[in-house]
Parts: sequence; C-alpha cells; structure tokens
Amino acid sequence: MSERGSRPPFHRGGGKPFGKGRPGGPRSAWRDREAAGDGPVILYGWHTVTMALQNRQRRIRKLFVTENAARRLAEENIDTRVTPEMVRPSQIDARLGPDAVHQGLLAEADPLPSPDIETLPAEGMVLVLDQITDPHNVGAILRSAAAFAVKAIVTTARHSPEATGVLAKAASGALELVPLVSVQNLARALTRLNERGFMTVGLDSQGSENLSAIALGEPLALVLGAEGKGLRQLTRETCSVVARLDMPGEIKSLNVSNAAVLALYIGATRLGLMA
Amino acid sequence: MSERGSRPPFHRGGGKPFGKGRPGGPRSAWRDREAAGDGPVILYGWHTVTMALQNRQRRIRKLFVTENAARRLAEENIDTRVTPEMVRPSQIDARLGPDAVHQGLLAEADPLPSPDIETLPAEGMVLVLDQITDPHNVGAILRSAAAFAVKAIVTTARHSPEATGVLAKAASGALELVPLVSVQNLARALTRLNERGFMTVGLDSQGSENLSAIALGEPLALVLGAEGKGLRQLTRETCSVVARLDMPGEIKSLNVSNAAVLALYIGATRLGLMA
Repeated sequence: MSERGSRPPFHRGGGKPFGKGRPGGPRSAWRDREAAGDGPVILYGWHTVTMALQNRQRRIRKLFVTENAARRLAEENIDTRVTPEMVRPSQIDARLGPDAVHQGLLAEADPLPSPDIETLPAEGMVLVLDQITDPHNVGAILRSAAAFAVKAIVTTARHSPEATGVLAKAASGALELVPLVSVQNLARALTRLNERGFMTVGLDSQGSENLSAIALGEPLALVLGAEGKGLRQLTRETCSVVARLDMPGEIKSLNVSNAAVLALYIGATRLGLMA
Repeated sequence: MSERGSRPPFHRGGGKPFGKGRPGGPRSAWRDREAAGDGPVILYGWHTVTMALQNRQRRIRKLFVTENAARRLAEENIDTRVTPEMVRPSQIDARLGPDAVHQGLLAEADPLPSPDIETLPAEGMVLVLDQITDPHNVGAILRSAAAFAVKAIVTTARHSPEATGVLAKAASGALELVPLVSVQNLARALTRLNERGFMTVGLDSQGSENLSAIALGEPLALVLGAEGKGLRQLTRETCSVVARLDMPGEIKSLNVSNAAVLALYIGATRLGLMA
C-alpha cells in the first residue's frame, strides 16, 4: 500500500498530542498495532465524526473538540458518547497538518468490523476494488457507494490510521454506512461471488463490451482497478464479463472515482434501483 | 482562491531550482507575475507533458527530463520542441515535493489563452464552475469534460502555478483539450449564455427537478457549485433551471467531480451525443 509508511502518522511539533500521552501505552506498542492495521482510526471533520458518533457499531475511544464544535454539538443535540476533551483548533491542526479541514472535531475510534464475504446479501450491488489505495479516491468512492445504496465494498487494501482519516473525511460520513469487506485474495473473493450468483463485471477501457449495452443482472458486483494499472490479469479473468465505459470525447479513461460513480449510476438504472 | 498563497510555489531545499536560475528574472518579478496569474505554468507527469508538447497552442519555455524519460520520448518519437535539460529524478522531486508523480518530466510553459465567452460555439455541452477551486477536483472535472467532448469550461477561478501543476496532472492531458474560459463575473457570463440560446442547468441537491427527468436541450450549460457551499444565490437565480441528481441511498450529495461526470453522462445521453 503506497500510502503506508511514507510519512509519520501525524505531523507534530514534537511532544505528545494534546499533552495527554499516547492512547494505548508507549510509542512502540502504538507502532505495532498501527503496522498490523488494527490500531485506532483517526476521524475528523463534522460529517465524518458526527456520523461516527451516531453509529452504534463504532466504538469511540476519545473525542477532541474545540469550543465552537462543542457548542454546535450541544445545539444539535448530538450524543458524544464519551466525555469530550476540549482543545484549541491549533492543537488539532498540529496533529493533522495544516491542510486538514477538521471543523473542530477529531475522534480516535476502533475500526469497524469487516464482515465476511459469505454474509453479504445476494441482492443489489457491491463494489470490488482491485488495489485502489489512494485514500481520496477510496473516500469519494465510498461516498458514491452510500449514495447508490451499495451493500458493501470488497477490497484488499488496508489503510494506515492517517490514510483512514483522509479516506473517512473524503467519504463524508459514508464510512459508517457502507461495510468494507477486507479480503486477502481478491480472485478468491470474486470466485465466491460468482458461485453465490453475483454477476461480476470488471471495468476496463479495453473491455470487449460497452457497460451501457449489456444486460446486467442482480446481484451485481462492479469491479474497478487502480488508476494507471487497471485490473490485474487474474482479476479480469475471474470476472463474468469485462466491460468498458464508452464516451464520445478524445480522452477514454476517467479518474477512478468518476468511473465508479458512472458504473454505479448505469448499474442502478439498469437494475431498477433508482426509484 | 483557497489554494493560492498557502504554500510557497515549490518545495525547495534552498537555492535555485536545478541550479539554473529562476526563469524570467529576479524573484520579485516572478512573484508579481504569479500573483497576476499570468506567469509560467508548471506541468509534470507523462500524459500531461507529452500532451502539452503535442499542443501547438501551448508555448513551452523549458523542459526538464530525466535520462529514462528522455529515452522514452525518443522511442515514442515525441518532438520536444525545446532542447530538454537533463536532470536527476531527485531534482524534480525537490522542486515538486515528494508526493508528485512526475515520471521524469517537468515543463515550464505559458498558460493557454482563455477564449472569450462570445466565441464559444452554441452547440453540445459546456460546464460552468462556480467557485470550485480545489485543483484535484478541477483536474478530474477537466478529464471527464474531455471524455465527454465538452466544448469549454467556464470558471472564475484563477490558479497559482503550483495549483495549475496539480490540476494539470489530475486532468491527465485534458488541460490541452478543453478550453478554460476565465470570467470575472459568473452571473454575467451565464446571462450571456442564456441570451445566446444555451439551456443553463444548475446542479443542486435542493433543486426542484430531477436532472434525469427534465427535457434537456442543446446547447447545454451544466453549472456546478463548490463542495459544501453549492451554487451562489445569484448563480442559481441566473440558471434556466436548477436540478438535483436523485439517488437511492442514504447520502444525497457526491464529491463535486463525481457529480460533474454523472451530469455529463446524463446530458450526453439525453442530447444524443454518446454515439
């Protein structure tokens, strides 16, 4: 995963975050959990954090709020579930870096449980992401998935706490709505979906058919590959069909989150899910 | 424009870029031109730079290439138009920051001329962006616009050289294909489009009609507002119609580039432009 290990998990001016000490003990233990991918996730931003607070499946460990955010939480009658710790906006800035739009809210939370692929309902649509790791793209895809009532996203990617924060922010609350099914082996997961009756449609600009022109069936799994690399060979071979998105202009490929939303719209329209 | 002035234009380890001196004279003059928005633009990445080299309207000032990129340019018989200056990858890294995927190519170029709104052909589709400034989003929108043969993008935003580099990279060559019409006053531009016979459709989650359900006419201008803020009041009032994108899920708004591509697909399909 390209986003892991490229930067320290937080930008800090040195010392402990918020002067409270690291949650979960000494730095080495924190690092170990992080590397294993099961450490706390960092959620920030109004939609992202308030949706997490409203999700009973989401265990909140700590909540840091500014005075303004605390007032707004009270005004909107939002149950914070844990006692919030008051911080200055600059303290959240120092933790997330200057570009993060946190709106005075930062939570440390447990990751949500990853459902098993066998438990997915065999109806509607799921998305399958083949090595798509960019957290902005995955976040935007999650948001579109929630907008199109996608049942789950199947992915091999595991995100660092920092990347999860960026992903959750780009998802604008959708991380609480769409289950992420984390699998080790994507081809095996696709095989199981095929066996369970899903139509598995890979999206690829070299696909033999136009997505808009094929008869789509429910349950439907739409499979997307990473920007530039596309679907891996084995992924492509395991799909029921590989389809392209025909477009009239000079450029024939889209940003992956744009391709995803178009595929979802076409899928939802064809399956009669738009009503 | 939120992205202007928040960071120095380049991350440098001090000293002059590539030890060649700043183009265009002393630092103060460079800064002035940058502030005025008519300084050179920085283009990097394979698609972005090679598309610029192939665009005769684009004046290339300087071209920096790594040994590998030089070999690939020669193999693919691409006319570099100016004598490239050989650099090490780390020198481009130092200029763009470690996260930029430059693939060994960086060009300094003149901005493309901004066509006048009066000269736009009254056919097909145009996009109008109301204060959308995030360069990743604008770049992804440009790429989708090129994929859907959009005639032009009308925008009030002017981007710094650094933001233009990010935008151009996200556009993956589309900056060379879709004219950007830069206007001072968006409501006045929309009024001119209305007078010239364009159907101007604002996209807003509070729109009175569903975009998929209204009769769209050519020439069509699709108008998008910034993430969070949406369309400004005057923009909304100047549009022929304000429409929403109906979706079946719990989240009712999309990332702005995702909303744009969906509107383009619906528009192109309705206008019979997909063939």
